[in-house]
Parts: sequence; structure tokens; C-alpha cells
Amino acid sequence: MALMHHLSTSISSSSSAFLGQNAFNSRTQKVSVPVKNRGIPRCVATPPTEKTVYKTKVSRNENMAKLQAGYLFPEVARRRAAHLLKYPDAQVISLGIGDTTEPIPEVITAAMEKRSHALSTLEGYSGYGAEQGEKQLRAAIASTFYRDLGIAEDDIFVSDGAKCDISRLQVLFGSRVTMAVQDPSYPAYVDSSVIMGQTGQFQKDEEKYGKIEYMKCTPENGFFPDLSTVARTDVIFFCSPNNPTGAAATREQLTRLVQFAKDNGSIIVYDSAYALYMSDDNPRSIFEIPGAKEIAIETSSFSKYAGFTGVRLGWTVVPKELLFSDGFPIAKDFNRIVCTCFNGASNIPQAGGLACLSPEGLKAMYGVIDFYKENTNIIMDTFTSLGFNVYGGKNAPYVWVHFLVEARGMCSVRFLRRPTWLLLLAAVLDLAVKVLLGLVPLVTGAMS
Amino acid sequence: MALMHHLSTSISSSSSAFLGQNAFNSRTQKVSVPVKNRGIPRCVATPPTEKTVYKTKVSRNENMAKLQAGYLFPEVARRRAAHLLKYPDAQVISLGIGDTTEPIPEVITAAMEKRSHALSTLEGYSGYGAEQGEKQLRAAIASTFYRDLGIAEDDIFVSDGAKCDISRLQVLFGSRVTMAVQDPSYPAYVDSSVIMGQTGQFQKDEEKYGKIEYMKCTPENGFFPDLSTVARTDVIFFCSPNNPTGAAATREQLTRLVQFAKDNGSIIVYDSAYALYMSDDNPRSIFEIPGAKEIAIETSSFSKYAGFTGVRLGWTVVPKELLFSDGFPIAKDFNRIVCTCFNGASNIPQAGGLACLSPEGLKAMYGVIDFYKENTNIIMDTFTSLGFNVYGGKNAPYVWVHFLVEARGMCSVRFLRRPTWLLLLAAVLDLAVKVLLGLVPLVTGAMS
Repeated sequence: MALMHHLSTSISSSSSAFLGQNAFNSRTQKVSVPVKNRGIPRCVATPPTEKTVYKTKVSRNENMAKLQAGYLFPEVARRRAAHLLKYPDAQVISLGIGDTTEPIPEVITAAMEKRSHALSTLEGYSGYGAEQGEKQLRAAIASTFYRDLGIAEDDIFVSDGAKCDISRLQVLFGSRVTMAVQDPSYPAYVDSSVIMGQTGQFQKDEEKYGKIEYMKCTPENGFFPDLSTVARTDVIFFCSPNNPTGAAATREQLTRLVQFAKDNGSIIVYDSAYALYMSDDNPRSIFEIPGAKEIAIETSSFSKYAGFTGVRLGWTVVPKELLFSDGFPIAKDFNRIVCTCFNGASNIPQAGGLACLSPEGLKAMYGVIDFYKENTNIIMDTFTSLGFNVYGGKNAPYVWVHFLVEARGMCSVRFLRRPTWLLLLAAVLDLAVKVLLGLVPLVTGAMS
Repeated sequence: MALMHHLSTSISSSSSAFLGQNAFNSRTQKVSVPVKNRGIPRCVATPPTEKTVYKTKVSRNENMAKLQAGYLFPEVARRRAAHLLKYPDAQVISLGIGDTTEPIPEVITAAMEKRSHALSTLEGYSGYGAEQGEKQLRAAIASTFYRDLGIAEDDIFVSDGAKCDISRLQVLFGSRVTMAVQDPSYPAYVDSSVIMGQTGQFQKDEEKYGKIEYMKCTPENGFFPDLSTVARTDVIFFCSPNNPTGAAATREQLTRLVQFAKDNGSIIVYDSAYALYMSDDNPRSIFEIPGAKEIAIETSSFSKYAGFTGVRLGWTVVPKELLFSDGFPIAKDFNRIVCTCFNGASNIPQAGGLACLSPEGLKAMYGVIDFYKENTNIIMDTFTSLGFNVYGGKNAPYVWVHFLVEARGMCSVRFLRRPTWLLLLAAVLDLAVKVLLGLVPLVTGAMS
């Protein structure tokens, strides 16, 4: 937390009006997100000399033991909460998860109210839903996002969010696959891979896990990996628009990626959770690239479109054409996972999701997106006018700014060794410049 | 489906008024549950000679390949749907999942309506919630179900259901643990164990997976395993009241089970999803047994209490006192799983869950439970009066009836070899006698 405090001070001293609250699309007055009780269980750390503590004879899962620190975002939230407890008046600029702050449009919440009420009536009550999601919603997702792409209703699996589906996909793949990931990128890909036992130990010197292929994405390569240097892996996680750099791959780049996967017989897990934020004419879906249905899975979410971060609703597309090496359809195994390890998304959010995809819902959803895009523009303009190199932002609610950090200045001890790229997650939180300050390498590997 | 058709015929011929609709607490007129589109993806099974099908070079997860057939309940639903498609006028007695049919009490849905609406307002909007659940709900669960048992708010992890938590626990344990399970029992324990690679191959002759310790629970042993014959395993799944036999373990039996686990250093995963259905004075929670906090995890759900099967809300208790052999708290690893592989239950159902635990909500919830218990009694009385041996029912919405099935009578070819126990899941579906006819051994091992 000290690092955030320093940053906050540093920003104020650079420019007193810098990122001032009034410059933003900000409807609330709160400076920091409400402090949540993350409830990290207190460890029983009584020294054995004082009392004999009973231990089971079950060995801890060695993969869990490989994980470094806590999952990134709860860890940031925990430090923020601890800091605020110590300094209640601190004006903390949250560097945590890209949370939403805009209310959900009423046309969408009204549908959820209606479904909630219906559940109290004989006619409107329903019990277990289809594990894959309600037929109408699956059809609406297929026709809204994948029209003319050959993706059918039954290729869509509705879920409680893309993050949860990423883990379910890892369970499906099992421990023997190898994986590649953009560096930097959303931490859930790597962490879930570690948990499933796909990786080696964490290498402290490189800040990378063994056996993961980290695909460097920097301004030097236009945030797109040099595929000629990337080793073949079974699975390639690819997030575009990227969280956190904000870079969106072009049609030409994605065509190369699909060809790369096809040549290697790899599966791309394509995370398109920010697709509707794109301003440029890049593909919104990997399935816009010919042949992608034979090598790709796509996961997406209503979280950042309609403010569903707490409501929990997403989907994953597993085309029938996607086959394991023995010809077995991957969708069939994913269906088995969804039926065995999940019971479908809550029916009330599904009613909300269907409302999102009505003509009025879509219009309202774009209103929310535009609000966050305006914030993104303000942040980009501000940093640009201050002379920083600014990337991202145009096709995503994420802005990536190059800071050359001086030793002992505003950076944590962990990164004194070298100039560091600091990450700006912007706009999704109303007035916040969300800087994942130096924490990113903990999870996604070193950035130079 | 043919087997259900036979059963239906058979039942009708035994007694024309047998389980007639009017005998039940039945508010709806539907005979079968609405046919859901389970959307099992169609397999691409084109012979390679006809067309060259592209296959990735990714090997199918060998653990997925071990799984027999589909997950039990979607498979039953699929067969039911197929049958109804062929015979639209068939009066199918559903033998599928124990679904709820009673509307959710309005005091509970009103809270969900209110929360849905609040999400459209500046004051009421919230984004990502705590992965472990809302503080108020965790506190209410702790004080409602675990008062005086030494279980605190931060020992409770709110989830989208017990089934989902069972899989998350399996991911936490990893592939190297061994497991024991009641035979028969809810199929998710075994299937998730297979998926995680804890088991050997399926042994067709025994109808069991290798490396799983099946603990026989029959009328002969009072549906409680003879622990002197049970091998030590790392994890013991124990469901009480049991799904599907309806048997609930007594305090004395659970005390023996806890001692057995303690002697072996095992972890009990105790599924208490039907605890509130108990009429006898058996423990409602494993934590009523002294010392259980050092060896047990408990999972439960609002599904069968408040009709939340489609709303999705449950919880899991992982006490701080529960430690791996190296002294590491299991709750800390479960917290990591919940943060990395899950993003918390939907906020709207959580508002509903909190309303369930208000004085009015609790009263309404017990009303729903009493409705299903009445149905259970009718089924028990009916079968008893027909001369069958009837078990369960008193402490659970499940009735277990002994049928001596004649060869080529009403039983599927698969079970012609021997007398078979047929399972009656009753009462949760209004007028349905839910008979898991012979399908159970597919999943939970042979029953004599």
C-alpha cells in the first residue's frame, strides 16, 4: 500500500489538477471503492511448542503451493483496506480490479425484477435450468455476436462469467497440456494453469512459472507477439482487446495467430470480454477469421458491457468443429464439465442478459460503454499532454502508460532494479486511474 | 427411456389410483417437467473417408475419457426429452434430478426484486462483490446454522451451490488424494473425482472406478458403513441426510465417523443440503460433533429449502482449525481457489439468501419444506400399504423402496442379472415419483 500512497503523493505534486475529480464522468462522490471484507481466513500459526495442533494426514496439493502470493485483485483490495484502516482520511487511487461503477440501465434491471417476482408465482416458477443456459439467451447471444459466423445456439455455453469459464476450461484440459500466454495479461490464465498442475515452479529470478510460454507483448512489437519465436504449446490464451495493455489485435494479426495455431495443432482460448469497446475496425470475435472454428474457443462476459461484475453472467463458445487429436469433440467434454462441476448461471441474471440483447438493452449497454470510453479518453489525453508515452485506450477501457521509474521514488522495493512499465487500468472505475503498480510481474512475468 | 415407459405401465397396472395426482400436494397440472433443451452438442462423427476433418494436436484429457456416459441427471433429462419427442402424449413419471416445483416465498423474491432495482440506481449499484460472499450473508449463515458451534462468519464461503463447491474442493485437493464415498450417493462426488484424476479406470464388471473406496450403505447396515472394513482415504464424502437413500446418520454414528477420520487423518466433506428436512433428533451439522472442526468441511445449499435450484446459492464451511499435514490451513487454499476460479455468487441471489434467513424468511422456508415432506409421507404410506419395504423419507425428501425386479419385466437389460434396488426420489417434484431406475449403479457402483 505504501506504493500507492507514494504514487498518490507523486501525482498530486506533478499537477494539482491532475486527474481531478471534475475532469471525469463521475457521478458518485466516493474516492475509493467501498472497503469489502475479503475475509481472508486467519491462519492458525500457533507455534507447536505452545499447544499441540491437530493436523490431518492429507498432503497439501503441490500445485496450490506453487502459487505466488494471493490472487492479484483480492490482494490489492486487502492492502488497500489495510491502508485505509491505518489512514482513514487517505485519498486512495485504487490500483485494484477493473471494477464497474455505473448503474445497470433500468431496461435491464426491470427484466431481473420481473423474473425475481415471477419465481414467486405458480406460472413463473422454474427449478433447475439447463446447465448450458436458457435456450432463448443462447440464441440471442449467437445472433447478436456471431451472426453469419457459423456459430449456432448450441455452441454457446452461458456461465457465471468468463473467469469461471477459464477455470472450467483448465479442468477440461487437465494437467498434461502446455500453455502460452500474452505477457502481460489477465492473471487468471496463469494462476488457473498453475492450480491445474500444467506448470513448473515459480522462478523467482525470471518472475515466471516453468513450462509456460510467455509471449512478450510490448510497444516494440505493437503488443503482438513475434510468433516466429513462440514455442508450440497445446493451448494459447489470447486476450484482445488486451487486459491490461488495451491493445487490440488487427485482422491481419489474428489471421497470423490462427494460422500459427493451425500449423501447430494448438487451441486458442480467445478472451473477447472487451470487444464492444473497440473503435478501430478490428475483429470483435476470433470467429471472424476463416478456419478459427477448428482451433478456437471464445469466452466473453456481460460484466464490462452492462455493469454485470456483481450480477455474474458470461458465455463461452466451443464450436462443434473443434476436435482433440483423437477426433473427440471438445464441446462434448466441456458440456460434461458444465453439467458435472456447474449447474448453470442463476436464472435471474439470465433474464437480465436477455434484456441486454433486446434493441433497447443494446442501446442502453452502448451508453454504459460510451461513458467509460469517455473516461478512457480523458486519461489518455491527460497523460499524453503530460508528455508520457500512452498506449491502449482506443479499443479498450485500459490505458498503458510508460513511466520511467526512478529508484526509491514512487516504486516499491521490488522493482528498484530497473525501469518499469506501469499499468494504467482506466475508466472502468469512475474517477480512478487504476495502476497495477509493479504487481503485474508477480503474476504475468517480468516486463522490461 | 423405455425403462421409464415400462415402469409407468407397471405402476398403473398395480393400482389404478396409485400415486394419482390428487393424492399429492400438487399445485400445478403439468405431469412432466418442462422439456429443457440440454443442448448436448452434436458430435462430428463423419467417417474420415468422406471428408478430411481437421483435428488439433491436443490430446484429450485422459480423466475425462474415463467418465462413463453423461452426468446422470442431464442424461436422464435427455432420454426423457427424446421419449417425449417420439411420444408427445406419454405421461412420463420423471426419474431425473430432484427438482423443486414450489414457488419461492414472496418475502424472499421481494428482496431479490429490490436488489435488482437497486442496481439501476447510483446509491444501490455495486460491482464485484467479495469472492467469499457478502459479509451480512456470511454472518447470517453462521448465526442461523452454526450458532454455538464455534463457526465464525469468516469460515463461511458463499457460493453458487453445493455441487459447484464440490468441484472447487476437488480442484483444491488435486489429483493425488484418495477418496471414499457412500454407495449409493449423489453422483457429483465420484464424477468430479474422476475428472480430477484421483481415480483409476472404470471397472465394468464391478461398475466401480479404481482407487475409490465405496462404502456400502444398505438396509443391512442401517445405511451407515461398517467402518471396520473401510480403507483409509484422504477424503471421505459423506452426505447426510443421504441423497438418494434418505438415510440420516445419528449422533452416535457421526461421532464414530469423526473418530474414524481423526484416527486416519482424513478430511470429511460433509454434504448437509437436506439437513432441515430432518424429523429425528440427528445432528443438522457435522460440527455438532466435538472435534469435527479439525477434520471436516461442510457444504450446503438454499436449493431444496427455498426453491433456489435455478437461483443458485449455497455455502461451504471450511474451519480455520482444519490443516493439511504440513500445518497449512485448508481454508487459505480454498480461499485462493474461490478468488482465482470463481468470482462470488451473483449479488441478487445473495439478497434472496439474506431474506431467507430473516424471521419471516425462515418461517416461509419451513413452509416449503413442510409441503415437500407431506408429499414424501404420501409416497411412503402408499408404498408401505402396497407391501414394499420402504426406507428414508423421514429425514429427507428421498424415499428408498425395495423392488425385486423380475427379469425382462420392467428393468433395463443392463440389470437383468440380479434383483435390483430401485431408487425413489420423491416429493421434491410435486407429483412425481422420481425413480432413478437402474441408472444409479452406472455412477455410484453396484447395489445388491
